[in-house]
Order: sequence, then C-alpha cells, then structure tokens
Amino acid sequence: MADDEVRRIDAYWSAANYLSVGQIYLLDNPLLREPLRPEHIKPRLLGHWGTSPGLNFCYAHLNRAIKARDLDMIYIMGPGHGGPAAVANAWLEGTYSEVYPDVSLDAAGMRRLFRQFSFPGGIPSHVAPETPGSIHEGGELGYSLAHAYGAAFDNPDLVVACIVGDGEAETGPLAASWHSDKFLDPVKDGAVLPILHLNGYKIANPAVLARIPEEELVQLLDGYGYQPFLVSGDEPASMHRKMAAALDQALNEITDIQRNAREGRVSERRRWPVIVLRSPKGWTGPKEVDGQPVENTWRSHQVPLAGVRDNPEHLAQLEEWLRSYRPDTLFDDGGAPVAPLRALAPEGDRRMSANPHANGGLLLKPLRLPDFRDYAVPVGRPGTTSSEPTRALGTFLRDVVKANPSNFRIMGADETASNRLGAVFDATDRVFQGERLPTDEHQGPSGQVMEVLSEHLCQGWLEGYLLTGRHGLFNSYEAFVHIVDAMFNQHAKWLKVTRHLAWRRPIASLNYLLSSHVWRQDHNGFTHQDPGFLDVVMNKKPEIVRVYLPPDANTLLSVGDHCLRSRDYVNVIVAGKQPALNWLPMDAAVAHSTRGIGIWEWASSDGGADPDVVLACAGDVPTLETLAAVDQLRQLFPELRVRVVNVVDLMRLQPSSEHPHGLPDRDYDALFTTDKPVIFAFHGYPYLVHRLTYRRAGHPNLHVRGYKEEGTTTTPFDMVMLNDLDRFHLVMDVIDRVPSLGGRVAHIRQRMADRRLALRAYTREHGQDAPEIRDWTWPY
Amino acid sequence: MADDEVRRIDAYWSAANYLSVGQIYLLDNPLLREPLRPEHIKPRLLGHWGTSPGLNFCYAHLNRAIKARDLDMIYIMGPGHGGPAAVANAWLEGTYSEVYPDVSLDAAGMRRLFRQFSFPGGIPSHVAPETPGSIHEGGELGYSLAHAYGAAFDNPDLVVACIVGDGEAETGPLAASWHSDKFLDPVKDGAVLPILHLNGYKIANPAVLARIPEEELVQLLDGYGYQPFLVSGDEPASMHRKMAAALDQALNEITDIQRNAREGRVSERRRWPVIVLRSPKGWTGPKEVDGQPVENTWRSHQVPLAGVRDNPEHLAQLEEWLRSYRPDTLFDDGGAPVAPLRALAPEGDRRMSANPHANGGLLLKPLRLPDFRDYAVPVGRPGTTSSEPTRALGTFLRDVVKANPSNFRIMGADETASNRLGAVFDATDRVFQGERLPTDEHQGPSGQVMEVLSEHLCQGWLEGYLLTGRHGLFNSYEAFVHIVDAMFNQHAKWLKVTRHLAWRRPIASLNYLLSSHVWRQDHNGFTHQDPGFLDVVMNKKPEIVRVYLPPDANTLLSVGDHCLRSRDYVNVIVAGKQPALNWLPMDAAVAHSTRGIGIWEWASSDGGADPDVVLACAGDVPTLETLAAVDQLRQLFPELRVRVVNVVDLMRLQPSSEHPHGLPDRDYDALFTTDKPVIFAFHGYPYLVHRLTYRRAGHPNLHVRGYKEEGTTTTPFDMVMLNDLDRFHLVMDVIDRVPSLGGRVAHIRQRMADRRLALRAYTREHGQDAPEIRDWTWPY
Repeated sequence: MADDEVRRIDAYWSAANYLSVGQIYLLDNPLLREPLRPEHIKPRLLGHWGTSPGLNFCYAHLNRAIKARDLDMIYIMGPGHGGPAAVANAWLEGTYSEVYPDVSLDAAGMRRLFRQFSFPGGIPSHVAPETPGSIHEGGELGYSLAHAYGAAFDNPDLVVACIVGDGEAETGPLAASWHSDKFLDPVKDGAVLPILHLNGYKIANPAVLARIPEEELVQLLDGYGYQPFLVSGDEPASMHRKMAAALDQALNEITDIQRNAREGRVSERRRWPVIVLRSPKGWTGPKEVDGQPVENTWRSHQVPLAGVRDNPEHLAQLEEWLRSYRPDTLFDDGGAPVAPLRALAPEGDRRMSANPHANGGLLLKPLRLPDFRDYAVPVGRPGTTSSEPTRALGTFLRDVVKANPSNFRIMGADETASNRLGAVFDATDRVFQGERLPTDEHQGPSGQVMEVLSEHLCQGWLEGYLLTGRHGLFNSYEAFVHIVDAMFNQHAKWLKVTRHLAWRRPIASLNYLLSSHVWRQDHNGFTHQDPGFLDVVMNKKPEIVRVYLPPDANTLLSVGDHCLRSRDYVNVIVAGKQPALNWLPMDAAVAHSTRGIGIWEWASSDGGADPDVVLACAGDVPTLETLAAVDQLRQLFPELRVRVVNVVDLMRLQPSSEHPHGLPDRDYDALFTTDKPVIFAFHGYPYLVHRLTYRRAGHPNLHVRGYKEEGTTTTPFDMVMLNDLDRFHLVMDVIDRVPSLGGRVAHIRQRMADRRLALRAYTREHGQDAPEIRDWTWPY
Repeated sequence: MADDEVRRIDAYWSAANYLSVGQIYLLDNPLLREPLRPEHIKPRLLGHWGTSPGLNFCYAHLNRAIKARDLDMIYIMGPGHGGPAAVANAWLEGTYSEVYPDVSLDAAGMRRLFRQFSFPGGIPSHVAPETPGSIHEGGELGYSLAHAYGAAFDNPDLVVACIVGDGEAETGPLAASWHSDKFLDPVKDGAVLPILHLNGYKIANPAVLARIPEEELVQLLDGYGYQPFLVSGDEPASMHRKMAAALDQALNEITDIQRNAREGRVSERRRWPVIVLRSPKGWTGPKEVDGQPVENTWRSHQVPLAGVRDNPEHLAQLEEWLRSYRPDTLFDDGGAPVAPLRALAPEGDRRMSANPHANGGLLLKPLRLPDFRDYAVPVGRPGTTSSEPTRALGTFLRDVVKANPSNFRIMGADETASNRLGAVFDATDRVFQGERLPTDEHQGPSGQVMEVLSEHLCQGWLEGYLLTGRHGLFNSYEAFVHIVDAMFNQHAKWLKVTRHLAWRRPIASLNYLLSSHVWRQDHNGFTHQDPGFLDVVMNKKPEIVRVYLPPDANTLLSVGDHCLRSRDYVNVIVAGKQPALNWLPMDAAVAHSTRGIGIWEWASSDGGADPDVVLACAGDVPTLETLAAVDQLRQLFPELRVRVVNVVDLMRLQPSSEHPHGLPDRDYDALFTTDKPVIFAFHGYPYLVHRLTYRRAGHPNLHVRGYKEEGTTTTPFDMVMLNDLDRFHLVMDVIDRVPSLGGRVAHIRQRMADRRLALRAYTREHGQDAPEIRDWTWPY
C-alpha cells in the first residue's frame, strides 16, 4: 500500500471517527468552526464510543476492496452498539441523505445528524432498522455471524463482511455459528468474511478470546475450519498496511475457493478465511481522563468524557479529541466531505450502506407456489379418515422447494423428517459440507434443507435469508422453539420498526411450523411439553404476529399457503404430525381457514338456533377431544343444543380494536353467545384464551381447558387426562355449567368420572390407550 | 489392563446394556428364562437405544476409576435421551432399589424396572429428576457442560464426568460452555472431565463434530484450552483397554494440575483433559434390520427393531440381541447381579447414582445472612429522597458474599457493575483464569462473581451450583433474560417434579435479579425493552414460581433477603438501578413486602373509607407515575377519594385457588373494591394483570396501563409517554372512568393532554425531561 493510499484511507477513517464522536456529543457547532462551548454539548451523553473506531477502520478498508474488486458486499456489525459508526459511514457515502433528505450532506445536515443521535424523537443509539445498509440490529448480541451466513446462502456473488465483537463471541449462538462453514456451498452460495475484532473488553470485563494465548486462538479458529489472518497493533499507518494486506489475502482466498469449486476442480472442503483484528478499544480516543487510563480499557465502552458540559477540562479534552481528526481538512466549506474523501467511497448500489441486499424487500421475488388444493387429502364424512397433517404439508413443500431452488429454504434442528416433512427430500438434500458416508440419506453438498442441532442457527440463518429478500420456513419441536424466544422478540421488533420506514421494502414473513407438540410427546415426556411460545408471540405488536392452529391436514395446507404468501409478519403454525382425523374437505378447509373461526354446523346440534352450550376448540388434539365430547353429549342428552366453534386463527378471539384480525364484538357474540356457557378446549396454556377474550361480553361464562403443566412420557389419552382436557372431563364441564341439566344428571357426571378413571386404568395396565379411544371416529 | 479385568468390565457393560434393552422392550420375562414371546413385549416401543451403550461404557469405566482412586465423582449425561442407561446403572449399583424399594434388586424388581420405563404411570424415557444420581434432565440439549462446571465450582474434591453428545455439541450453549475452563479455579474448585462422545448421528443426520477431520477436531479442543485424549473403535476388548488408559491419563492430569495449583507451584493456566470417545451409535445392537444397516447409523437412534410384537423375525432378532449379553451369566437365580459384577460397583456414597452432590439438598447449608435491615437507606418523608435500589442491595450482597465464601455465587453477563451491585467487589473478585492486565479491576484467579457475556452460561453454571446444594443469584438486564427462557422452563419443570419426590431434598431457589429494565434504557433503546419474562414465568407451576416488583430500595432489600432464604422456587425480582424516590422506611418496607400488596394510606385520600377510584401500581417506574398522578388528582380534585394500592408480590393478584400466594377474594375485594374503577399502572405487558385477575369481581372495572411495545433510545418521561403510562395519562384515565367527575372536567382532561404534549415537546427540544418531571417529589 503506497504512502499516499495510507494517508487517504486514514483520512476517511478520521472522518468517520469524527462523525461518530460528534453524534455522541454535539448538539451544535458540528464542524468546530467556533470554539467548543458547553451549550454545544448534549445534556444527556448517551452512546457507545469504544467499538466505533474499529468498526470505522474495517469499513474504510472494505470500501477500498469493494472499489478495487467491484465487490457486491454487505456489512454486518456484530458490535451493533457502535451505531455511530454505521450512521457515520452511511452519511459519508451519501446514502443517509438520500434516505433521509433532511439530514443533508452539508453542515446543516451534519448538525442534524449529530443532534438526532440517541436523542428524544431522534434515532436509536445502536445499529437499527433505521440505519441504511443494516440487516442486523445492534441490541442483543450473538447473531451476527448466523445472519451473515443466512445472507450469503443462494447469493453466489455476494460477500458478507461480518464484524464479530469479542464480547459477542462469548455467547452461545455465536460460538456455534462458526460451524456454519459446514453448511455453505461454495458453488451456489456467496461468501462470509468474518472479522473477529478483539478490542479486549466488554462493558467492564476483559473479553475471553482477547485473553487467551494467540496460539490457542489460532487453534480455535483452525478447529472451526477457518484460515485466520492476524492484524494486530495500534499505530494507524502500520495497521492500515497490515489490514489492507490481510484483506487482500482473504479476498483472494475467497475468490480461489469459489473459482475452484465452481469450475469443479476441488471437491473437498476448503478453509475459508477469517481476519482477526486486534486493536485498542476506543482507539484514537482520549488516552486518559481524570488520571485514569481510558483508551484500550473498558472505560472507553460508552462515553469516555462524561462531564463535558460542566467540567471545562473535559470540554477542552473533547475539543482536542475532535480536532485531532482535523475536520477542517475532511469537510469542505459547506460541510460536505471533501472530494478526495468522497472519491474513496464506492458508488451507487456498491456502497455497503445502499446495497439492496441490506434492504431485501427490494430484491424479493414472490415464491412460485403450486396450488395447495392439489395436495388435499380426500375427506368424505368428517372425522372418519386419518392423515398426518405435516406429511400432507410436506408434499406441498416438496413442490415449493422444486419450483424455487434458489429462493426458499427450510430450517430445522434435525427434525424435518421427524416432523414428517420428509417428502421434501424427493426434491432436495440437506446441505452438508462435512464428510458424507454411504449410509447417509439426503445429505448433499448443496440443498434447500438446513439441519443443525441448534435452534439459534436455524433462526439466525433464516432471519439473514429473509432479510436479504428470500423465503423460508423454520420447523421445530414446539417446546424447543422457546430456545429462540429472544431472537423472535428481536426480529419482531425489527419488523415493527421497518413497517414505519417507507424506504424499507416488505420482506417475506418468518414462518414457524411447530410440530411434535405438547400433546404428543409419547417418546419424550415432560421436558418436551411446552406450548408457551404462543404467549411470548402475543406480547409483540399485533400488526406483526399471527398464530394459526389448523385442526387437520387440509386446513394446514390452506394456512401454510397463506403464510408463504404473506409479508412482514411472524406466522406461527402449530400442527400435529401424528395420524389424526380429517375434519374438512379442501373447499370447506379453505373457507374455514380464511374465516379463521367458525361454527362447525355439521357437528353442532343447535339447529342453527340458540345453543344451550358452546364447545369451542383450537388445536388438533383439543378439537378431537371436543368432538368426542360432543358425541358423548349427543348420546347422553339428545335434547341438548350444542354448538361447536373451531378456531384456526387465534387472533380472531381478540377485539378488533386490539388486532387487525380481531372479530368485532357483534360477530364474536354471534359465535359464542353472550350468556351461554362456553367450554373452550385449547392447545396451549388456558390463560392465553382468557387474556385474549377478557373484554368480551360472554367472558364470565367462558371456561378454558388447556395444558396446565402436567405431563410425562405417556399415551395421548393419559396426557389429556392429566390436564383435564379429555372428552369425559369436557362433558363433566358441560354438566357443571348448563343449568338446564340441573341436578338430575349427577349420576351421569359420576359415570363420566368413573369412565375416565377406568380408561386411565386400562392405559396404565396395557401400556396403550383403550380401543374405544384409539379407534374413535365421528359417528354422525 | 489385564485380560481378566477387561472381561469383568465387559460383563458389567453387558449387564447395563441388557438392562437398557430390557427397559425399552420387555413387559415380562425379564431374565429370558423362557423363550421370548410377543406378549412379553410392550405394546408401544418408546425409548432411545442409540446413545445408551456409549453411556453405559463410560459409566463402567468411571466406576473402575472411582474404585481404584476412591474418587468423589458425579456423572452428567448430556445425551439424556439415554435414560435407560442411567436407570440401568442405578439399579446395578443397588441405588435404585434403595430409593424405590418396590423396584427390588431381583427378578421381580427387574420386571418392574423394565415395565415402568416409558410406560403410562411409570417413569420418563429420559434421564429425569426421578433418576437417582442425576442433576441433569435429558430433554432439551445444550446444558450438560455448563451444569458440570456449576457442580464443580467450590467443590474442590469433586470430579464431574460429563458426557457431551455430538448432537448436543452443535448447540450454542454447549459450544460456549467449553470456555468455562477459563472460569475454573484449580485451587478452590473441583474438576470437570468432559467426554465428548462421537457416535456420529443425531436423530436423522450426521453430527458435525463427527464429520470433520480429526486434526480439525483436535485443533478445536486445543483452541478451547483442553488437552484431548482420543479413544476410537468398535471392538470391545480393545476399546476397554484404550478407554481405561485414556481415563487414567486424564485423571492423572487432573490430579497433577490440582496438586501443582494447590501447592502453589504453577501460576499459569494449564490445559485440562478431555476425552474424545468415538464409538458406534447403537453399539452392540442389531447390525441390520430388514436389510438396512442399523448399528452405527441414525437408524439406531430410538427403537432399532420396531415391529417385534407382530413380526416374528424382529422378535427372534430381539431375543438374539438380548441373549448376546448372556444374561444367565450376569444375574443370579434370584435375578440380582452376580457377586463379581456387584463387586465392581463402588460402594455407598461413592456410587455415582448415590453421590450426595447429585441430590444437592442433602448437602445444603443455609446461607449466613447479615441482617438486611442494617443496609436500609434512611427514609423520612416518603418520596422525598432518592436511592439506587440495586446499589443498596449490593451492599447487602457484599456481606453475603463475605460470610459465605464457598457457598454463594453471583452470575451475570458482564452486568454486575452496570446493574450497580459493584459493592460486592469490595468482598470478592470476578473469577477469570485468562490473562489479567494491570488495568483490569476486580479480576482474579478465584472469586464469587462470575461474568461472561452468555446468559446461557450464567444460567447453566448457576443451575449446576444450586443443584449440588449451594446458593446464588443471576443478575441480568431484564430484556435479555429471555435468552434463557427455555432453560428457565426446564429448571422449573425439574423443580416441579422433585417437589413430589420425597427423597430429593429441597435446594436453594434460583434467584433472578432483573435490572436495567424496560423503562430505563436511556442508552440502549427498543431492543433492550422487553418485560415479557414475567409472562413466561407465570406459565409454570404456581408452587414453583414467585415474582416480586419492589418499588424502592428498602423493599428490594427485604425481598432480596426473603428470596435468599427460600427453597425450591424460582424467584424473579425486577428492580431499578437508576436513582429513584424512596417510599418506605425499613419497618414499613418489611411489613409491605411481607404482605406483598397493600394500601398506601399515606398516599391515599379516601380516609380509609370507600374510595372513588383505586390507583394501583406494580414496579418502580409505575409507582412513581402513579404517585405523581395522585399528586395531580389531589390538586385538581381535592374532594376525590383516591386509594393507592401497591403490589410487590405479583402472585397476590391471583385467586388463592390458583396460587399459594393468591389473595382470597374477600381480601382482594377489600383492597380493590368490587365496583370502583381501578387504574393499574404495571411494569410489564398489561395483559398479564388481566390474566391474573380476570376471575375477580372487580375485573370489569380494571384498566391496566403497561408496556405496549413502544420505545426507543429516549428519556424516562418520553418512554412512559410513548406507552400512555405517564402521570398525566393516568389522570386522564381517572377522569374517563370516575362518573362522579362527570362532564364538568372536560377542560381539565384537555389541560392534562396538552400538558403531556408540552412536556414531550420540551424533552424533544432539550434532549432531557423538564425540571418539573426530573425534580418532582411527593409533596405531602
């Protein structure tokens, strides 16, 4: 690297650093054209300096490489606390002013840029949806590298540069993410260039990877399957040279790996490059404050000079610090970056802050979807034939996979076959770049199914894939999706914010298929029984979240198709994989799922008139138990007018004021009545239904049965019994709540109670449920 | 290893394998004393064979080492699906029959042992709380190694053998757990011996670590800081020799590291041993079934022969498989293990299935607790002085740390100082065995504070520490505790089951201190705002979970003391770290926290009589806004009778039928009335309060304000405004709901609405809240 180039790149870095410090501190006087005075300083100093200079350093060097190689590159900042860095670079490249014209590329714009940062009514302190060029929020740490890989899949010409902070590197999800290299196909996928940034400290602690011997660090990265290039030091000129050289080597390696693979020359896995950048935390900031060391210590994490408004010494130190970047040489009279600086930035879509992959909706192509009706299971009389719902969905997904070979992926923690979506393997393999053996099935060097025993990776990869404009589905055991509660929360927050940013184009929804659910853990028991993800989901913004509980195969197909077409949502589908009765032929299934809730007239005995009792159900097992209870009720009380309401779209239960899918009170009351007892058999924790319906007129009459945290490795009937959701208990609930049945039925109630106990005894004696349970079908 | 010893250990292994297969298959004929017939077979075949032989193999070898070296050792089975293995060994050692006398050490007991497994009314299929010798449930994967380290901390004489499955090894938490070696003090702590078991497959997929070049695997473990010993093969005799040798080497290393450290001879970190065991999945099981390879493939994961009852060929194959272990040579006439086998097992507490560390309550010593009242902040008139509540708690914790140097730890993701518990560093360091620099503060080779940027590790370590009979606290940013939702769920399930096992002694509660909460993310914004952990917690069994929202410093001290004394709960405390008004002097704080809910008469204006409106609050910020609203109301409507109810213990809101802390309806009604409007300012998502109170008579009059998923990096007042929880909005809510105020107050309502908007404008103009907000104190 020539001296001249070093000087230029150093100036660019200085400009970004200047703009980062300015955002944290300055209300006014952005270009320091007058001496710095207390009133130029923000009253609340909020932001994170420590990581920003390192992020700016990498950004400048990546820009150089983009220009030199015409790279299509995006930038993921794991240490997203360094929001000032992302914003600074987007402004320097001109993107910020294009997206937010009031933050213009001049002195007035710079003033606004500084002022808005971490300021009431302004922008967040972290890299955020508001930040052009970002697909990665800088709040909760651990997901940068998984996002980076997700972005790279099926994007053969993209290079994803990913800064991994040494703090973040301590998290579990990040530690597992390094192994993503075993799932990256050098032919069909793009490249990820991780830059492990060791600046030594987290909030108040040394970072683990910064404090192990370098030999051990290299072994670790070797062991993860990478080839590390080390860049270490604190003297800028020499660091620029080292970084440029390392980056050139790394990018050459990437080109080489890809070329060899794509020309078919090498079949075994090659080690992808990783750069290890060891530089001081708070680099170029104050060395000491009040006699304490700051640069290169944890004290530079947030705001190194805290008392600037009141402490003249701090004020002077800040001014000196800002002027050390020589802003007069970086910005012209109008306040724009000087021409030689601007010439260093890439142009148009090549700017990382403007790369369309980082605003994936721009690139989104709708899925090519076959007609889901073609995959219908035949249903004649309701409740007389069985299907495995997820198996039916699998045949549909197989053809979705076929029709969208580079635009759709299915993620799962080694559960695609277990969740009975195995038909997809007729169309694609599980991608795996580790050693493959002849006994393996459906493993290949590329493939649209990604399986790894890490829900974090499945979720992180899928998020990265969706955020860059593609489509997908995450199938999980229901209980274990809680592992990614926090990631779901963050993604839902991201979508909530992007909804209000017109420049962010809609992306495909994040679709969860939760199977192997709470009621059918015959093999696994209590640890695998937890339907509480729905409760987590319901706390997010109603405009973002959707929950579906299709009761059978055809409704699942209809719901699945709907979710794959939707945008900017998180869709949660809970569906069984075990053989279960089919209730609805396809036409009825479409109509029912589209309404999301409805009376099953064929199962009701109220003749369309006022019922004596409403039996409501949501979920496949509760629907089965409800219908079996109705069968009992018809036999026991032929005169009783029973109405059956089935709920597919859980959001319909809420008032329309609370959720876009919410039923108006009038419609809700028409279904549930305002004064009749409602026995609601629910898939999940019963409180959730109360929470959704407490404003409804009929709520005092609502009695909900659901999972009450009782379970073990046992039969389906024993499970519903343990939780009082079984058909006989539902009948007892009806008897207890329908006054017209009165005292005359105490003996029938007792008979029900005895019967369920007898059936439990049968189960415990024979190790399986009695034939009358196993073979029950809808007899009408 | 002499041939004779090889034969003996192989026989022991065969016995455990036989018992494992028996559990999966046999209803009867446990000793195969008659030919195997279909009616001897369970009707539903449920369980996991694949991992069991490897677990049994390790168990037998560890037993040999325990006997030879008189080791104090416990066994953690990461692949907990192998429940049959844990149960088999506990029975072989006699422990099972001691704990469950009906499962005797004879033929009848063996029949019961087999029958109960994965059978309705029996025991779970996984390693579970019911399994003697276990502190680690085998459901959700990823936490074995963190549990192992947690068990080893402050247990200098304990060796924790931890089998890490190659499936589990793909998870994030496990990948991060390897780095626990940087937090283990060879002087004060015991040792962990990880045994990475590569059997090659998960459910249907190859495992990543089993399919990378061995060189890479060794680099990875080297990089994690370990010294790997490799054992690989499938020929039993040779494998026994290799395993015994590897184990001897590894245990010698441990002894050597500990002796050197304890004698002060070595100061730098040494590499702890790890054993890598590569053996076939389903080892010793059927090689082929129906022409498909089974042993050493994913097909052996669960039940290798699935059609035994109906398929005579499978039945014959099962019989051949069972007889291959030569049960006639392993069990005596009565069905007990033959004497030479029994002689191989350790005795008494040395048996891993009977080691008291695995039933930690047996070893539990109460904490030595100073009197928390001594740490009170002085409070004269309520609401006139400020404290940082967590800072006050920190001084108390400092002395808890001092008084319990080997029995109490504080975990946190680098947030102990940030959460203002820094006083503890007067008493202890953060333990860190990586390189330490002079600029580091409070880092030491040993210490009772453990900080790592991984909530998974914090939680896993603490669980292991508690389960082995010690005490602790996990402090976390509120939003990021969602990262361990799934781990919390599993621990709560564990506690729920142990509650009903008399032989499991109570352990210390898992205490969460959630600070840096939703309302005060001035630095961090939207990603850091999520109070939804409370909703997750509330889904678990009421007998296990407790949630506290102390409104100020003294109530926090009282609640903190209470939680540290409790047993077998999960306690969640949400408390602020920012300066906040003190409401209660210590005596009142103790009384109020003990009741958990109460009328604040000093703040109320109903003169103890019927109020016109109830203002309720839970949480520090909601309490502040409520009291400020009361101040407004008193000025605006001097005649209005306002009652203030503050809630510390959230469970008090539930009916007493639902939770042991629940208020009887009579008491609830006395506080909240049955007919007056209640405006409830809540810390979390408002739905939670509705969910808890929907059965109360006054529920239709309850109006809850809380976090509704609006936020960014902004001021405290802007945050409450964004969510309509601010004092002015509460006044507007009162006006809207108190009929006696009638239409005459429309202009006052408008004044409130204008005032909040003016104050927001001030905030957005000045970057901080107006003095009337910042400086407000309780004026009465």
